[in-house]
Amino acid sequence: VPGCGVEVFALADAAGDHLGIHEAAVESGVPWRLVDQPALASLAETVHPQGLVAVCRFVDRPLADLLRRTPRLVVICADVRDPGNAGAVLRCADAAGADLVVFSGQSVDPYNGKAVRASAGSLFHVPLAVAVDTAESVAALRASGLSVLATTGSGEVDLDDALDAGLLAAPTAWVFGNEAHGLAPDIAALADSRVRIPIHGRAESLNLATAAAVCLYASARAQRRP
Amino acid sequence: VPGCGVEVFALADAAGDHLGIHEAAVESGVPWRLVDQPALASLAETVHPQGLVAVCRFVDRPLADLLRRTPRLVVICADVRDPGNAGAVLRCADAAGADLVVFSGQSVDPYNGKAVRASAGSLFHVPLAVAVDTAESVAALRASGLSVLATTGSGEVDLDDALDAGLLAAPTAWVFGNEAHGLAPDIAALADSRVRIPIHGRAESLNLATAAAVCLYASARAQRRP
Repeated sequence: VPGCGVEVFALADAAGDHLGIHEAAVESGVPWRLVDQPALASLAETVHPQGLVAVCRFVDRPLADLLRRTPRLVVICADVRDPGNAGAVLRCADAAGADLVVFSGQSVDPYNGKAVRASAGSLFHVPLAVAVDTAESVAALRASGLSVLATTGSGEVDLDDALDAGLLAAPTAWVFGNEAHGLAPDIAALADSRVRIPIHGRAESLNLATAAAVCLYASARAQRRP
Repeated sequence: VPGCGVEVFALADAAGDHLGIHEAAVESGVPWRLVDQPALASLAETVHPQGLVAVCRFVDRPLADLLRRTPRLVVICADVRDPGNAGAVLRCADAAGADLVVFSGQSVDPYNGKAVRASAGSLFHVPLAVAVDTAESVAALRASGLSVLATTGSGEVDLDDALDAGLLAAPTAWVFGNEAHGLAPDIAALADSRVRIPIHGRAESLNLATAAAVCLYASARAQRRP
């Protein structure tokens, strides 16, 4: 993780198992400290740690700074509570080429160990803002010229219609709400449009990460192949 | 769950909390037995059960029977091991309007409690075949006229190119492989094409359920709006 590594604690054979990490640590002058199994176990949160624990700096930046880079595809997680979901959305945002992820309102801390693991490294790839007010984030993104689309099962625009209408080719910020309660109506009302993902079968909804995947890949395609 | 409910064990106030389930049980003559909290806790697997436990029949059917219904959108989970992933893929397949889900090879049992919960009811919505050989499933689906697409990061066809070429408008069976090791090369070789989801950022891959969401929604759109 270039630039944010502080210190690595590793078993003796971990350097061989994780050549890329060892190389990156050496190159960037991050101390590589050997520890034994009980020491590693006391540092790691998982039952089966992967042989090393890296201590990293926080990577989030103020939203205003990140908006100066004129992002074109943004994710706002509003009150997303589950760390596994938070990490999965980060990974998916990274894969879809999102420029910015915002954890707003009462969202879980993306530095939660489970979120970090579920992000599979993407926590360190995508520019990140945390602990922002959701309404303020929406206002700031709209002021930066992005179209703000809120995802809700009761949205007035079907995602396929939005695609057919060319709505997704514009710079877009997607707002995803809480896993159990969805997006708060007052937040949904702030968006330019409220978009529903079509449900073709009998499921009531998609889970958060799969919903984000569908919306973000629709945007990625529309922005690249209008 | 019409047709497969056998018996419900419920707390006294559960009928009021789950009106739809109570009504369905009464209508279909499924016995509704009152139990106390300790009895429910001994039946349920979760720390916080939702007030009732329903005993259901298995819902899978032989693959040959299900193919007679001429499915147009099929999911094959080949060696998918994590029950949460299995359930999430079922939910996503249901939402995208898939006609059939096959758990083949060394895949986890979709009746695993965690898989059932992650499916959020979709286990009972989508026609299901289990415990089939993967190569035989692929052969049977191709013999039924479906185009078989294997998802792999090294696929020769980009998903967006497949969409642009009209490849996804045909009846399609998507094959998804193991979470950790991906799809076995001998299985990938059996498919009509190997498709890679474009990674626009720095993530190495998507997780299984989000990859399935992207592919299945791409197919659902292509089949409906060619």
